[in-house]
Order: sequence, then structure tokens, then C-alpha cells
Amino acid sequence: MPGEFDFVEWIASQPFPHEQQHANRVLLGVGDDMAILRWRGDDLMLVGVDQVLDGVHFDSRVHDCRDIGAKVMNRNLSDCAAMACLPATAVATVALPRGLGLKAAQELFLGLRDAATVYDCPVVGGDTASWDGPLALTVTIIGRSAGIAPVSRGGARPGDLVYVTGPLGGSILGRHMKFKPRIELARELAASASVRAMIDISDGLSRDLGQICSASLVGAIIEAKAVPIHPDAEELSRRDGVPALEHALHDGEDHELIVCSSRSLSHARLICIGRLTSDRGIMLDRGNGTTLEPLKAGGWEHEL
Amino acid sequence: MPGEFDFVEWIASQPFPHEQQHANRVLLGVGDDMAILRWRGDDLMLVGVDQVLDGVHFDSRVHDCRDIGAKVMNRNLSDCAAMACLPATAVATVALPRGLGLKAAQELFLGLRDAATVYDCPVVGGDTASWDGPLALTVTIIGRSAGIAPVSRGGARPGDLVYVTGPLGGSILGRHMKFKPRIELARELAASASVRAMIDISDGLSRDLGQICSASLVGAIIEAKAVPIHPDAEELSRRDGVPALEHALHDGEDHELIVCSSRSLSHARLICIGRLTSDRGIMLDRGNGTTLEPLKAGGWEHEL
Repeated sequence: MPGEFDFVEWIASQPFPHEQQHANRVLLGVGDDMAILRWRGDDLMLVGVDQVLDGVHFDSRVHDCRDIGAKVMNRNLSDCAAMACLPATAVATVALPRGLGLKAAQELFLGLRDAATVYDCPVVGGDTASWDGPLALTVTIIGRSAGIAPVSRGGARPGDLVYVTGPLGGSILGRHMKFKPRIELARELAASASVRAMIDISDGLSRDLGQICSASLVGAIIEAKAVPIHPDAEELSRRDGVPALEHALHDGEDHELIVCSSRSLSHARLICIGRLTSDRGIMLDRGNGTTLEPLKAGGWEHEL
Repeated sequence: MPGEFDFVEWIASQPFPHEQQHANRVLLGVGDDMAILRWRGDDLMLVGVDQVLDGVHFDSRVHDCRDIGAKVMNRNLSDCAAMACLPATAVATVALPRGLGLKAAQELFLGLRDAATVYDCPVVGGDTASWDGPLALTVTIIGRSAGIAPVSRGGARPGDLVYVTGPLGGSILGRHMKFKPRIELARELAASASVRAMIDISDGLSRDLGQICSASLVGAIIEAKAVPIHPDAEELSRRDGVPALEHALHDGEDHELIVCSSRSLSHARLICIGRLTSDRGIMLDRGNGTTLEPLKAGGWEHEL
């Protein structure tokens, strides 16, 4: 029966694309107690972590291991987008259901490695264990500011325009496994000084915009008619009878960005959906002449 | 029912001891997509990750949440010891069995935060989810070389003396939840140029020494009579009939260090147990005039 050490040995033997280019950054990679990295003094370091759990973020009966591995990495890369940093390196853990096998573990690794490679982000370490529980993976990503000031959730001001980077809703139909982290776009936007706050939509527009409002001590008015509705939200609406707009407002795991800017932005992907206010609370303007209605945070929250 | 956001808000409200001293290092902490840290250009960065899983690394029916939180942090701090780096910051994930409750989640956090505080290591971010699986935690630790060259597993040479930093075996009787990362000792030893390789004993002396031998392309001869046997190994031997020496050689989770040095070292905690050889393979010398016998890697390996 192969074991974790066979798995780690196999990982260490995998060529990492562009390995030579990483030699300056990664002094010691997979296989020791910790990896060793060299850092430039004028680069800020950013660190974040996200997990994916069977039955919550994926379904191991339906999704294949490559896609699961890619998802946990892409969730983290999407956090890099939200902060406008460049991915620099990552470490991962996997808790494998006993007997899942070396092949499945390798597929998980290749999924996350390939997703990281798109952004030139070497995976330099990790921890593997098997247990009686379901499949669970985590990735910790380390980013660097690389000349662009990071964008937090807390810098928005009343009057800022609120944009999203793509149509929303219904990601559960499949897009939640196959989204694209908006790193290049985020870096491009953040290079202009007008962008004051960003977040990626993991828990739903209403909830994640709420995070910006809460961190920035502002409120917002969202124009219902401006919210871009993904065809998947329409499809889901046909199936469950919930209006497509509700899906666009509250569904999670689109991993598009919410971008708050002091000035009007022009980019093919950007859709302006409203503006920030000094009155706290998020209001929805249905544009039918009635009063604004409070937009409650829907979307996903893990109950404890 | 409280949710993950209540938990994160509570975490962010927790005073971190010595917060003022961290202000220079941590520019943005808990609550955003990623934390932001300032790094000195002449400091190497080290990164490692370890998980603890219910039924494998702890038993939630027996161990309390503070101890479980402390264990996952201390495993990572012990990796810092093995590399001779200073802990700088950490992020954590927790997958909570549905309905476990906010109080338990808080206890887990306090356990890991308090363990980190001993080494002045702020917890700057994380990810919380609830699911139908058992309790699982990870910590990713970031260390800094801070003037002492990191010590890997791969620098040992034939002829080096092999030390351990304390008595071994029987940690399952309780010490595996309550060990002390040997960071100060490791830094003290690594400051002397003679220390060429270190590892912390997580999977068992035989297996972890094997890691050093494999990374350094050496073998070893271990003197059975020199291996320090913990009273817990004796106690376990009385219960299970396995010789106490076997427990000392193969039991995991002592988290003492194996230290390979080109010169004789003198320190109250250090016990010399053998030396490295150019012949590959690890041999046990029972000191009874018989031939050396191969020391097979026992200890812990996760089967896949």
C-alpha cells in the first residue's frame, strides 16, 4: 500500500514549470520541515488561506480530483486578485479518506499545481494525512505587492462607484468549480489610484459587499437593473422558481470582484451596479419608483 | 445560531498580546482576503504547514478544544525549531463539525493563539467552515531566519554525531498533546556552524532520522543503549509488552529534535545516540557484540 512518503516523493519529483525562474525566490522547496524563500525588502508580503471540504465546496461523487485541486488553488488565487497582489508561492494540505489511493492524491496535486502554474506560483510544501473523514484540502498562498499597493476592503468612501467584473448567480450549476481568478484585471485596476476597495465574491454579492461596507464604514445603493445576471442564474431560476436577480444578488462562489472606485472606470469586464453612501446599510433600488428596500445579506454563512 | 462571521468578528476583537510590537510587521491582519506583512530584505522567509485531524492526531471525545488548538500550532512551531527559524506569523483553518458551536470554535482559537503567543507569533488570518465531517485544523506558519542560517535535513555528512534533545517514546500517553517546541535551543545550536542538519521527531526517530539520511545521502549507526527512553515508553511497554526501546525508536509525536553536528556538542538537553556513515541505511548497534541490525523505519506513515 503506498503511503504519504511515496506521495511526497512523487510530488518532489514533479517538474514545476519555470523552475529555473524560481531558483532565486525558492531556496528550498518540497520535502523539508519548511520551505525557504528569499524576499525583497521593498516587497510587501501577503498571506491568505482557504479550504475546500467535501459536501460543502465540492462533491467527491461528482467532481473529479483535478477540478477539486484546481478549485482550492483558484480560491486562493482569487484572494490574491481581491488584494491586487501577485501570487508568489503556496503550500497545501490534504486530508485523504482512507483508501482513496495514491492516484487520486496525485490528481489532486496536479489540479492545484496546474492552477498555480498559470500564475507562476510554485507549490513549495504541504502536509498529507489519511483519515476516516471526508476529503478536505487547504491552500495557503503568499503574495507580493510587486510595485502595486495592496487593495483592502477598508479603503472605500461614500460616493465611490461600485463595479463587478462579470455576470453573477447560479455558479452552483458548475462555474463554482471552474472560475478564473481576476488577477491581471485587479492589478491593472489597482495601478490606478482611484480604486479604493476590492473583494472577491465568494459568499455572495450582498454578503461580500457588506464586508466592504462594514470595513469601510459606509453603506451602498445597488441598482437592481444594473446587476449583471449570469445565464446560469436564469437557468437556476427556471428550476427553482427563485427570481434570477435573487441568485445574482446572493449566490456565492462567482469569484468575480467587487471594485469600489472614486472615479468612473472603463473596462470591458466592468459593470457599474451602484454607489456607496454615508448612510450605513445596503439598499436595493428596483427602479420602479418605490422606496429603496434594504438588501439583506443572503448568500453563504457557515453556521457554527 | 451564530455563524462564521460572528466567529471571525470575535477573533478580530481579541487582543493579541504585544500587538503594538507587531504593528511594524503586520500592516493588515484578520478580516480581509489576505493579511499584509512588511518584510526585511535580508531576512529569509520560511513557510510550512501542518494539519491535525480528529481520530488521527487527537480524539475530540477525550481532548479539549484548547489543547487541540495548541497542538496544531505547536506542531508548526516545532517545524520552526527544526529549521532554526523564528516564528513570524501564522494563518489557520478550521473545519467544524456542524453544530459544534461558537464556544468550541473560540476555545480552539484561544488554544492556538496562546501557543503562538509564547513565541510572539501573531495569527493574521484564516478560514472557518462547518461541515458534516469531523474536526480538522491546519496552521500555516511563516518564519524568518533573523540572522541565523536555516538548518535543513540535507546538510549532514558522514561522521557527523547524531543527537536528540530529550527522552523518547510513549507520547501517545499524553505528551503528544503537550510538547514544547525546541525553538530557543535550535537557534542556539544553529548559531554554531557545526550543526549541519536537523528535523523534529513527528513520525518517529527511525523514520525521521531516515529523512535526514535520505536528504543528506548518508546512513547512520545508532547505539541502542544511548537512546534515551521516556518513562512513558516504559509505562506503555508494561501495558503492551513491546520493549520500551522499540517505543523510543519508532513512536511519533515526541517533537524533540534530531541534531547532526560535525563536532561534539555540549548542552544539558542533548544526548548523543550515534553517528552518520557513508554507507546508506540505518543500523542499530545493540552493543552485545552481535552484528549491527538494520533499523527499519517504523513509526507513523499515512497509507493512501
